[in-house]
Amino acid sequence: MREIDSVAKLAGYFSRLPGVGKKTAGRYAYAVINMSREDACGFSDAIAEVKEKVRFCKTCGDFTDEEECVVCRTRDASVILVVKEPKDVLAIEKVREYQGVYHVLHGVLDPNNNVGPEDIRIKELLPRLDGVKEIIVATNPDLLGEATAMYIARLLKNFDVTVTRIAHGLPVGSEIEYADEMTLSRALSDRKEM
Amino acid sequence: MREIDSVAKLAGYFSRLPGVGKKTAGRYAYAVINMSREDACGFSDAIAEVKEKVRFCKTCGDFTDEEECVVCRTRDASVILVVKEPKDVLAIEKVREYQGVYHVLHGVLDPNNNVGPEDIRIKELLPRLDGVKEIIVATNPDLLGEATAMYIARLLKNFDVTVTRIAHGLPVGSEIEYADEMTLSRALSDRKEM
Repeated sequence: MREIDSVAKLAGYFSRLPGVGKKTAGRYAYAVINMSREDACGFSDAIAEVKEKVRFCKTCGDFTDEEECVVCRTRDASVILVVKEPKDVLAIEKVREYQGVYHVLHGVLDPNNNVGPEDIRIKELLPRLDGVKEIIVATNPDLLGEATAMYIARLLKNFDVTVTRIAHGLPVGSEIEYADEMTLSRALSDRKEM
Repeated sequence: MREIDSVAKLAGYFSRLPGVGKKTAGRYAYAVINMSREDACGFSDAIAEVKEKVRFCKTCGDFTDEEECVVCRTRDASVILVVKEPKDVLAIEKVREYQGVYHVLHGVLDPNNNVGPEDIRIKELLPRLDGVKEIIVATNPDLLGEATAMYIARLLKNFDVTVTRIAHGLPVGSEIEYADEMTLSRALSDRKEM
């Protein structure tokens, strides 16, 4: 009734963020009102800028603000680590152990929701295989992630490349994004041939 | 290292929101990247618009997008309910029972942090007393809220106005077993005949 239109509208946008309910969205909107004009403008610009600058790396599919990301340009391309989402790349980079490059699928196979091999970046992996020694499949250790890993392993069977899967050091059913760095590190070093 | 500048910047702004840590801020930033261009622009504009349009009501000090808020313009001005912050107004409005107007202090007295009567909107209450029958002091039932309520009660002693304080007691639906001793003590001493 007495809620201000522009505040309600902003809260509506906040509530689209993951895990943000109506009440939290309202608190965020009030926090913006309490920011200095300079900060609020900076915040507003930062959102527009991200959307304008960030795109997908033409090689690995990760987010980047260049045509090809710095990882693809500078790192050992003989090992490719396959993940579901860009935030998984970030999680693995934090461990500071992996020296190879990535391949972001932007999804996993999900027959119940009509997500097939054509809907995620699986075929984009094939032209990258030249000179590659190992493909590490690091999709989530859950049902869809495992199925996607199996699919990729089978697809690459006839190519001259070793396909490995990160070890089940990760608790089954969890998500890579939330794994602690020690567990992630173990999962990397214990990877097994598929 | 490989974090994209514009994403890191946006995450930095998100982490200024209440209760948002580094990890959550990163997730929010990724959510923005995944928004459609239209939604992200709308989000960006909504932040700028809130900061541009929202100001303080000249009478009660609540947030509004007009010179005087709709509550001050249309409701019974013979009862004024005094709160610490604009979000307290929102909480009380949700009850849909209160028919009077508000007075937002924008803070409470806090001697340890050098917040005195001049630093919050206490003196702005005095010109509003004409024709007012009751002042309900609804600052938080904590140490600083109580002290501020006492100060206001003493200040208004010589004016022809009744000053009341919202009741203390057990929250509805709570269990006596888990109530703290201060609350139980107040609930007992403030008991009402049935």
